[in-house]
Amino acid sequence: MTKHVHGGNIYTYKNCLDFSANCNPLGTPESVKQAIRDSLEQIKDYPQVGYQPLKEAIAAYEAVEPEHIICGNGAAEIVFSLCHALKPKKALLPGPTFAEYEQALVSVDCEVEHVLLKEEHGFALQEDFVNWLHKDLDMVFLCNPNNPTGISIDRDLLFRILRICREMEIFLVVDECFLDFVKEPEKHSLKAQLSRYHNLFLLKAFTKRYAMAGVRLGYGISENKELLEKMTMATQPWNISVMAQEAGIAALKENEYVENGRQMVFEEAKYLREKLQELGMEVFPSEANYIFFRGPEDLFEKCVKHGVLIRDCSNYFGLKKGYYRVAVHTHEENKKLIQSMQEES
Amino acid sequence: MTKHVHGGNIYTYKNCLDFSANCNPLGTPESVKQAIRDSLEQIKDYPQVGYQPLKEAIAAYEAVEPEHIICGNGAAEIVFSLCHALKPKKALLPGPTFAEYEQALVSVDCEVEHVLLKEEHGFALQEDFVNWLHKDLDMVFLCNPNNPTGISIDRDLLFRILRICREMEIFLVVDECFLDFVKEPEKHSLKAQLSRYHNLFLLKAFTKRYAMAGVRLGYGISENKELLEKMTMATQPWNISVMAQEAGIAALKENEYVENGRQMVFEEAKYLREKLQELGMEVFPSEANYIFFRGPEDLFEKCVKHGVLIRDCSNYFGLKKGYYRVAVHTHEENKKLIQSMQEES
Repeated sequence: MTKHVHGGNIYTYKNCLDFSANCNPLGTPESVKQAIRDSLEQIKDYPQVGYQPLKEAIAAYEAVEPEHIICGNGAAEIVFSLCHALKPKKALLPGPTFAEYEQALVSVDCEVEHVLLKEEHGFALQEDFVNWLHKDLDMVFLCNPNNPTGISIDRDLLFRILRICREMEIFLVVDECFLDFVKEPEKHSLKAQLSRYHNLFLLKAFTKRYAMAGVRLGYGISENKELLEKMTMATQPWNISVMAQEAGIAALKENEYVENGRQMVFEEAKYLREKLQELGMEVFPSEANYIFFRGPEDLFEKCVKHGVLIRDCSNYFGLKKGYYRVAVHTHEENKKLIQSMQEES
Repeated sequence: MTKHVHGGNIYTYKNCLDFSANCNPLGTPESVKQAIRDSLEQIKDYPQVGYQPLKEAIAAYEAVEPEHIICGNGAAEIVFSLCHALKPKKALLPGPTFAEYEQALVSVDCEVEHVLLKEEHGFALQEDFVNWLHKDLDMVFLCNPNNPTGISIDRDLLFRILRICREMEIFLVVDECFLDFVKEPEKHSLKAQLSRYHNLFLLKAFTKRYAMAGVRLGYGISENKELLEKMTMATQPWNISVMAQEAGIAALKENEYVENGRQMVFEEAKYLREKLQELGMEVFPSEANYIFFRGPEDLFEKCVKHGVLIRDCSNYFGLKKGYYRVAVHTHEENKKLIQSMQEES
């Protein structure tokens, strides 16, 4: 068993400006905080089992049916409950990617096959990924756009994978948690395919869209009712706290805030990419709200010296020392990040 | 798969005075609410993986080592992560008891053997329970005092079970979530046995002691490091929200509040027992902060008519229509419960 190191470790690197976790640069909306304050008179009571009002709010937001929604104590809980429910024997993961897919698979004794995303291909999923699909597989996890690279999957390739998975009876989980910050999310999302593909599960989070990682709230969408029931039975009935249920309902009304956050990400990502390139970093073409790049091997320590925390990606499968991820923040904060690097270069 | 019905369903029975969930009658301490308010500036960040400050606070409170503590999104999450980590093939449960032990066991395809706690024995665990222990068992769950009956386990019998379980390599989980409201908890707790018995896991909750069911925070204590590591690996790294970590640390300072709640429970339980008996109910000798009794089969509906929600226990294994559980509340509230029943009798 390996110990995982994550982004957002502001507890070890205290008082650092945190670029290692990827949330909306505008911070938590005030309405979400107020919803939590208002919920405090109810915290003596158990949360609502089945969280119907939250489910209905998400369903309205996503334009899907409430019964196709399942919520988790963060999207990460859903990754685990998927594995606990499906009990896969063999799964396929491209790498580098989010470490919790593998941790969850290993926790149910699942054998994991890895496909290396190569730097020479810009870390993009290649056509030959389909050759790695075979009938003994029970499950495939894809992150779109991928974490930590921000590289999205070619739409035609994604559809081909989805079709082949159905033919081979492989369950496909697509993590769309970072899709909110992509320029045209609707061109990437598989949501419209859910009714046709019951082997498909989409993963979504409030964490990034509304900068509320500490609240813990994520959701999944699937039209596979049997799976959703199995996941519910493999999870405690009160997994979504009173505060998270109210915070989620309030957050979903924050359309303008989300759009403002997106526009800031588009603009500032451009700024960061240019400045990082000027500094001699090799910047990969992330489409998400974070930038993935290659730089000096001691960059992490140098940034910490300046009170800036970046994500050292050397512990991702397929990566090594010298690969980094930084979240896109406000202009003032991004300038501070660049200045820290300039002073060290 | 069966659908579980739980206490605390204040969402279906709106505006009812809720006697169906068993929390400290004094309500959530103000300091816990304030800790959550104060944490709101941090909810944009991921919670601390490993929640070391919370672990240390619990360890100080329990006078155990921090590395023997594991926290959950409510004690119920821990019941599931125990099963996900141990993957038992065969388990033994006395019944009636808390429904989630069985749900968690079934979710890992565990076969469950049941020992019926009989009314003629006052629903107490009997000496012959040890005859039900055998070497094919992997796990036993005991709730002490039991839910929904409030009956505690004879100390000598509990020690005998613990010893036999170790000999037979059976993992023993003792749920001590309601022990805080028993007159002499130290006479019942197995905490002092943890160092000698690595097949022992104790379950504890903030929910009942501090009336914070909606926050979701529970913990377990064991000296079996291998088990704790397996449980950690079978759970997402961010299962305890920022709010819950801060709420827990604040709650553990509330010693006077806990003692006041205990004294109120002792006094008011006496009142409720007497009044329920006067009303002709058959009251069992609960030692916890709730009263278990038998009454008319339509009592639940009659109480709801008066705006009072009691726990209909007919869906517990081994029980049927006519068994009820009520939490011990403040005197004013308990009077209202009794009045509702008087008006209907």
